[in-house]
Amino acid sequence: MSRVLGLDPGLGTTGWGLIEADGNRLSHIANGQLKTNAAAPLPERLADLCSQLEALIAKHRPEAAAVEEVFVNKNPQSTLKLSHARGVALMCAARAGMGVGEYAPTLVKKAVVGTGGAEKAQVHAMVSRLLPGAKIAGPDAADALAVAITHAHHLASARRIA
Amino acid sequence: MSRVLGLDPGLGTTGWGLIEADGNRLSHIANGQLKTNAAAPLPERLADLCSQLEALIAKHRPEAAAVEEVFVNKNPQSTLKLSHARGVALMCAARAGMGVGEYAPTLVKKAVVGTGGAEKAQVHAMVSRLLPGAKIAGPDAADALAVAITHAHHLASARRIA
Repeated sequence: MSRVLGLDPGLGTTGWGLIEADGNRLSHIANGQLKTNAAAPLPERLADLCSQLEALIAKHRPEAAAVEEVFVNKNPQSTLKLSHARGVALMCAARAGMGVGEYAPTLVKKAVVGTGGAEKAQVHAMVSRLLPGAKIAGPDAADALAVAITHAHHLASARRIA
Repeated sequence: MSRVLGLDPGLGTTGWGLIEADGNRLSHIANGQLKTNAAAPLPERLADLCSQLEALIAKHRPEAAAVEEVFVNKNPQSTLKLSHARGVALMCAARAGMGVGEYAPTLVKKAVVGTGGAEKAQVHAMVSRLLPGAKIAGPDAADALAVAITHAHHLASARRIA
């Protein structure tokens, strides 16, 4: 059994989702969305994000973390902001002693829905089905749960191979 | 008098430069370049960078920090890596209670050399002249000292206006 924390980092909203994986059997523990104050300067928002992540990790004690990879999208400025937040999220997870899995968005969709070209709504629906009873806090929390599920599958197949 | 820490963040090498500013009189305190292990996973490199920055800040106790702004350059993948490191650097400075100034590269060149289109070598030469006796650890340390000088000038003019 292992506790996997999925993160969908963002400067404004960071989704998180915590699941427990026992081989291929998954159960939902908790999920939510961390917010930072849009009126505060960037360095302070990043420090705030880090403190919130540290509190989350201290409370739930996950054993592994997973985060989606990021690509330069149509708006390079938002990609920059996202990368600042993502750097802080990866750093917090590593500092807490967790191994951090990184997965391409298409790989997450494939692991959860079965096809790399799935729509956001399909991912959300499939996450709800795979984790019955989970009340999902929002789209970023759903994405975070999806990457946690992907990592749990990955860990399970790695164990089968070993 | 105030102690200003300039940072030129990078995943592989982060330049830093510490100066003391007394109005427009500047003096060099220390500079250097922090390295992370290129063979380590990204999250661990970011955690390592954060620990090194924390040790640096604890040792020298700067009162203010300054970092160059980043733009998407010809290689979006390196911009992404840089932004991860920059996010961690901003976060560390903010966590240590420092205000963090952010300056566009052209503004730094203008403050140090007098023209926004200055070459890297001119910036380096001018930093050496403005901080006599400073033994500069490398190009990233020179850039870090340049942004520290920019911030010191900015603080001095803000005080004159106030």
